[in-house]
Amino acid sequence: MSSNQANYQDRRALSARQVRMEIREGLYDRHTAGLAAGKLQCNLAIIPEAFALDFLRFCQRNPKPCPVVGVSDTGDPFMRTLGDDIDIRSDVPRYRVFRDGAFTEEVTDISALWRDDLVTVALGCSFTFENAFIANDIPVRHIEQDKTVPMYKTNVALTPAGVFSGEMVATMRPIHKDRIEDAFQISGAFPHAHGAPIAMGAPGDIGIRDLDAPDWGDPVPVREDEIPVYWACGVTPQNVLMNARLPFCITHAPGHMLIADVSETLEDQAINQTQHGEKHA
Amino acid sequence: MSSNQANYQDRRALSARQVRMEIREGLYDRHTAGLAAGKLQCNLAIIPEAFALDFLRFCQRNPKPCPVVGVSDTGDPFMRTLGDDIDIRSDVPRYRVFRDGAFTEEVTDISALWRDDLVTVALGCSFTFENAFIANDIPVRHIEQDKTVPMYKTNVALTPAGVFSGEMVATMRPIHKDRIEDAFQISGAFPHAHGAPIAMGAPGDIGIRDLDAPDWGDPVPVREDEIPVYWACGVTPQNVLMNARLPFCITHAPGHMLIADVSETLEDQAINQTQHGEKHA
Repeated sequence: MSSNQANYQDRRALSARQVRMEIREGLYDRHTAGLAAGKLQCNLAIIPEAFALDFLRFCQRNPKPCPVVGVSDTGDPFMRTLGDDIDIRSDVPRYRVFRDGAFTEEVTDISALWRDDLVTVALGCSFTFENAFIANDIPVRHIEQDKTVPMYKTNVALTPAGVFSGEMVATMRPIHKDRIEDAFQISGAFPHAHGAPIAMGAPGDIGIRDLDAPDWGDPVPVREDEIPVYWACGVTPQNVLMNARLPFCITHAPGHMLIADVSETLEDQAINQTQHGEKHA
Repeated sequence: MSSNQANYQDRRALSARQVRMEIREGLYDRHTAGLAAGKLQCNLAIIPEAFALDFLRFCQRNPKPCPVVGVSDTGDPFMRTLGDDIDIRSDVPRYRVFRDGAFTEEVTDISALWRDDLVTVALGCSFTFENAFIANDIPVRHIEQDKTVPMYKTNVALTPAGVFSGEMVATMRPIHKDRIEDAFQISGAFPHAHGAPIAMGAPGDIGIRDLDAPDWGDPVPVREDEIPVYWACGVTPQNVLMNARLPFCITHAPGHMLIADVSETLEDQAINQTQHGEKHA
């Protein structure tokens, strides 16, 4: 079977590198949920170096929506700390290009747009704790229903840095009241993937008007004995980049993430710095 | 009793802000271990903006020795995300000044040296997990013996960024063999304070020649049934800054840390972004 005939189920068995090669070759441009199980998936902000220091300050000050997991050298299209041969110009299924703060195009390759002054910032993604929820028998409604997680603008102010400011975007997942504490604890163990929830309960408390009308993604039902729980969302930095009206920047398309070679727990990244210890533990 | 007569024991009862005010007024210039219990203490790197992006990249790539907990705006002497009225020019007991990679002077105030292009990067510190060890009945030998923790150059290579590169500096604490797992787990819960150990056992495995001859600090005995355990050390960035031969930079003097208003668990910093949720949890 040729790789362009491989369906989604087949692709679930591929390694991170194999999926990236299919994406690079233009054979796959769909969402990456469930692919390369156990591997870190990343939101992306590709911005001119002139804004990179302020953007990293912004991320440091707002770690829940903007958990940095990798930063490229200026002009270097390879994400060397996240894996082997990750070419950020071609290895992401879909990109969004913004000029002067306005979305101008969605593309599957940015080689023609690459510039020597670009810096790529990779940010953790909620797929990580969703996988942990499923492994711990906490159902994830939008996955059950094959929908995109509902995302909402909130009134939770972010700590500004330079041109970057705004309010947090949050995702909502209905959690059974008996599993709330588990959900806080499990997601809290992944600070590089938005961490513990930012809120739970009445949507109005964080400025959400109507759970049935998300700003992005699809609405999902909240059933009896469930409580809506809110997490910081990786769409926040996209929103902040748009607000900042950068002359030029590129992000991934929502749901179409960079798949890294490092594990979603970042354990193997840490092993870079515990190599000797592991042997003798 | 006037504040300049307050001894170390009295100072242990002061708030973070009160200690900083004493330091600012020149009434205290000694080490900060044990002061303002429960508050975050920070290593400092104060560097020209021209190097700040690469330094933040270096920290992101080497989070165990360089866990970033705060970054100032360029030229702003106040650490606004770490507390109220923290003036980095005067609120640290002792500073070290480096020119062209060479240590030139140790001072108690850097107001006269301040420049509009300086960026302050605050990094977590091992006091945080040492406090947690003591709270969990894991003795900390150098504290018991009123010594400075022994620090060693290792052969553990750091991931470079721009002009910044080198090997990790590690601290050593002897841990009873029955508490090794607890020590890994407890310190591992504080990734912003060097996290879990980088190694344990034979010092030669990470390039340490002689535990009795630390490169900084004092040697401490490793007793029967104890294993030497090694953690990434906040002196690493100082060493890396010296190697990089920056034209100008300032650090705190080892042990003489910035005391922040936020808690050492960073829980209250997170609360900035869970304010509404907390009310309804």
